[in-house]
Amino acid sequence: PPIEGVDVSATLGRNSYGKSGVRLMKVTRTPDRHEVRDVTVAIQFEGDFEAVHTSGDNQHVLPTDTMKNAVYALARRRPREEIESFARALVAHFFVDNPHVSRIAVDVMENGWERMSVGGWPHHHAFMRSGEEKRTASARGTRDGVAIEAGLADLVVMKTSGSGFSGFMRDGYTTLADTTDRIFATDIRANWSYGNVDVSYALCRARARQALLDAFAEHDSHSVQHTLYAMGEAALEAVPEMVEIRLTLPNRHHLLVDLERFGLDNQNEIFVPMAEPFGLIEGVVRRGGVRPTLSVMP
Amino acid sequence: PPIEGVDVSATLGRNSYGKSGVRLMKVTRTPDRHEVRDVTVAIQFEGDFEAVHTSGDNQHVLPTDTMKNAVYALARRRPREEIESFARALVAHFFVDNPHVSRIAVDVMENGWERMSVGGWPHHHAFMRSGEEKRTASARGTRDGVAIEAGLADLVVMKTSGSGFSGFMRDGYTTLADTTDRIFATDIRANWSYGNVDVSYALCRARARQALLDAFAEHDSHSVQHTLYAMGEAALEAVPEMVEIRLTLPNRHHLLVDLERFGLDNQNEIFVPMAEPFGLIEGVVRRGGVRPTLSVMP
Amino acid sequence: PPIEGVDVSATLGRNSYGKSGVRLMKVTRTPDRHEVRDVTVAIQFEGDFEAVHTSGDNQHVLPTDTMKNAVYALARRRPREEIESFARALVAHFFVDNPHVSRIAVDVMENGWERMSVGGWPHHHAFMRSGEEKRTASARGTRDGVAIEAGLADLVVMKTSGSGFSGFMRDGYTTLADTTDRIFATDIRANWSYGNVDVSYALCRARARQALLDAFAEHDSHSVQHTLYAMGEAALEAVPEMVEIRLTLPNRHHLLVDLERFGLDNQNEIFVPMAEPFGLIEGVVRRGGVRPTLSVMP
Amino acid sequence: PPIEGVDVSATLGRNSYGKSGVRLMKVTRTPDRHEVRDVTVAIQFEGDFEAVHTSGDNQHVLPTDTMKNAVYALARRRPREEIESFARALVAHFFVDNPHVSRIAVDVMENGWERMSVGGWPHHHAFMRSGEEKRTASARGTRDGVAIEAGLADLVVMKTSGSGFSGFMRDGYTTLADTTDRIFATDIRANWSYGNVDVSYALCRARARQALLDAFAEHDSHSVQHTLYAMGEAALEAVPEMVEIRLTLPNRHHLLVDLERFGLDNQNEIFVPMAEPFGLIEGVVRRGGVRPTLSVMP
Repeated sequence: PPIEGVDVSATLGRNSYGKSGVRLMKVTRTPDRHEVRDVTVAIQFEGDFEAVHTSGDNQHVLPTDTMKNAVYALARRRPREEIESFARALVAHFFVDNPHVSRIAVDVMENGWERMSVGGWPHHHAFMRSGEEKRTASARGTRDGVAIEAGLADLVVMKTSGSGFSGFMRDGYTTLADTTDRIFATDIRANWSYGNVDVSYALCRARARQALLDAFAEHDSHSVQHTLYAMGEAALEAVPEMVEIRLTLPNRHHLLVDLERFGLDNQNEIFVPMAEPFGLIEGVVRRGGVRPTLSVMP
Repeated sequence: PPIEGVDVSATLGRNSYGKSGVRLMKVTRTPDRHEVRDVTVAIQFEGDFEAVHTSGDNQHVLPTDTMKNAVYALARRRPREEIESFARALVAHFFVDNPHVSRIAVDVMENGWERMSVGGWPHHHAFMRSGEEKRTASARGTRDGVAIEAGLADLVVMKTSGSGFSGFMRDGYTTLADTTDRIFATDIRANWSYGNVDVSYALCRARARQALLDAFAEHDSHSVQHTLYAMGEAALEAVPEMVEIRLTLPNRHHLLVDLERFGLDNQNEIFVPMAEPFGLIEGVVRRGGVRPTLSVMP
Repeated sequence: PPIEGVDVSATLGRNSYGKSGVRLMKVTRTPDRHEVRDVTVAIQFEGDFEAVHTSGDNQHVLPTDTMKNAVYALARRRPREEIESFARALVAHFFVDNPHVSRIAVDVMENGWERMSVGGWPHHHAFMRSGEEKRTASARGTRDGVAIEAGLADLVVMKTSGSGFSGFMRDGYTTLADTTDRIFATDIRANWSYGNVDVSYALCRARARQALLDAFAEHDSHSVQHTLYAMGEAALEAVPEMVEIRLTLPNRHHLLVDLERFGLDNQNEIFVPMAEPFGLIEGVVRRGGVRPTLSVMP
Repeated sequence: PPIEGVDVSATLGRNSYGKSGVRLMKVTRTPDRHEVRDVTVAIQFEGDFEAVHTSGDNQHVLPTDTMKNAVYALARRRPREEIESFARALVAHFFVDNPHVSRIAVDVMENGWERMSVGGWPHHHAFMRSGEEKRTASARGTRDGVAIEAGLADLVVMKTSGSGFSGFMRDGYTTLADTTDRIFATDIRANWSYGNVDVSYALCRARARQALLDAFAEHDSHSVQHTLYAMGEAALEAVPEMVEIRLTLPNRHHLLVDLERFGLDNQNEIFVPMAEPFGLIEGVVRRGGVRPTLSVMP
């Protein structure tokens, strides 16, 4: 129903399309041993896709099914490589024959598998899933260059000492008491960018991860924010190639159970882990005097 | 290990903190009948929180536990209202006593419950969950004003005719065949903004939802993008108060099963629904000549 | 390391194998309108499979991949039918050429889709998912006969009055107070058997479901157990063909929020829905003087 | 509507009630280091509960809320112990003051946390979740005794060689080809019983787990069933106290991608992991000449 003074014309704003959930298990076979890489890939295109939206003209649309096929073919063509390189290669591949595309985003998530040991020896071809921790990588490219982010997700950690929360602001709805000894449990999600795309991804990743874990364990925490910043600082110090890091730390609360009702004390021993609600703390820590730059495409 | 020429100083970038997963069931009791509202609330603060990160000074930090308490107290204080109003009220509440906060985001998600019928009559106090569809609302506020977004998520729809995909681009990895008759299944996620915060939220929502569903059902679809745009146009036409709408439409593929191997035909009758991979199509449709504006805070 | 007196010989006990998660979307096309059936099938065989386990001899093993193919072929061959009939037909099919199989279990789960309305008219080919409720059916067959169970799952219901829990047993760990007015929320899971396999499945299912819902809504509940029994009684009364019914009713607790701390009352208005922990109440209600019987195979 | 000849009387069949999802984090603090135990407990009672069902009389019903409280109190009272002992202690506790209860089932599931290392040293109080693998224990008790089962779940393993499937039965729907080299991936679920309740639970568990993993890795597999049996045999051999073991092994299929279409070979290198459908193989392996026995209650 047209209303006077209301413009009923519609225009297309930002839009993208692609394929998500492309599952790939890659087995590399050498006489000595097998290696496995278990990844999930997502690809998104942006560009001049006005006609497909407004008039149903598909002539510039590469099917998302083709994107999926390309993932498998490139995985076959390319030697063992880190997920950061694979993401970057996919971006480069898709720019070649898609003149209408101006931006490409590729996200890769890797599940970990550790080699089994049998009788004390690493096994040739048997593996065990190494937890819910994921390695992540993303490449965001334009015709001018590509930016790489590396990261990790679902790295679940906990410390049972060295964490307090006190001296905070109070209002009429504040019932929380000061504490100098609480459980601090979180699922670390970290994403960091490099100033240059040609870094040693595996080495940088290993250093970043260890720095994050060490800082979490060792920090005398006044709050989740306080530890988040210490973790970011530690990662920047351990990995000079890193420009900035974004940390997302849900606060997985553990409530002390009131056992006095049953004539028992509870000296920080018996807790209920709460799934909901949870605190959510997010922050970016950035290297002083440095700015992320897009490098030239390979 | 300090590297020559690498600045090891760290600075805090964008950061936020808050509480997520605050579950609330509100029962309104009148002699005639009960009404229920089942929502999940998330709150995030941004502001001057440098000291909490860098020196562990919590004096400006309102605990996220207090945010949770405020949700319950405000739910009690306020009469029956739409989730858009509740989100807006929470933003306004938190700005009052938190001078260090500059931005507040409140997201509310509502599960639907429909009243049961017994013997053909609506029941006084018994309800059934009405599917996985969620109503969503968000309020994003600064000291200058607040912007409201309404939306819906997990509205799962399918059409078994009126959808094709042909005439698309092909490269060396393209194996998909043209089709003029396929299943089109998706989970609609829609978010739209209003030019003014004082609209009739319930009425606008009902009109937007119906327009989206009607357009999905009736459109002669050449692609998911094509239908996405038609749905956006229809919503803008049905709700003059709407400024723009963002639609996210995963393409839930259904593969035709090859039954010729068993001497059977399969004239678009027997399909395998695939969970992975899935297409992912996203786009914004905007009213011509209008721009979103922040209104003055209530 | 053999220990004296310990028998180290191993023998095979009860075993089964099959295929689960077989997804099927079946579209039936008539000029008037399309109909859809969205099911997930699981099949398990028991029988004489000693050799496959102990010596790796596969000659009597029908691949689970073949079971999957048979689901699609039978779905194509058979006209529109209820999931109970489809489960039964699959059992019958697999007994024909598998002489080593002595027991077959087929479980079918159906997602609901409701036809969309456009402009007040039922649409020809557009559908909406009708919530998380599932229809279930299972057929358990031997060479002598088959037994059919029908059921439903994930039917989420709630009543905000007509439910109390008082006068219960107390011990030293009891802190719960009597209540005569609480929220009673549950996800109904029901499974019932028929004395005869040739009943009108659709009609019986509709009557059973309505009886369960009506009883839940109308019952003056002293406990979940109390209402479970009333629901079972009502179903047996509504469906004479039903022999017994098993109900599983998790008690989805809703905690009253203490608002007195903030100077507010809370007269059963503001609750926190708790995901964990939950009560779990399960029971069978059986028709007097009747016993389930295996009927002769079709 | 009463039908002639149909008995409309209802009787209560088997029934149970209890509490599930009781979450507990227990921290044991010594000067040297902290230890954590992260468990989820479920409790079910069976007994003479006719009156609660049929007449709403709650006088013999211990609230499930009390069961939850008892879990926390017993966790506080008892020193560090294995989950098998804790399950057994809970069964014994609940029999004391509940004369109407005849059977009690307690299930405990434990999440693993591994101690972090910082600078090569085990940390005093920082931990990392060690994957999705769970330890499980259950105690099933009557007034005459209790039986203990131990187990593990969600232990995700894969071997990329040493697995084939050939020489199987074929019918008209069989399209699967013989293979002598495929990926074998599964999530191990194992449950085993002891002939005596006073075994060394931790030692037996460690031996059972290692035997299962070694057998999986080393076995020359002709089928999932073949390896299941070998795993069961190995566990029985490694743990003389074990009477029988039940293994559930979903077959997580990995499909070889057809790359010939793109002029590429694929020598068992590039696979698609499939979530659905999946094979499901289950079997019991039992020690020769031994029968499970219920031991006298502690």
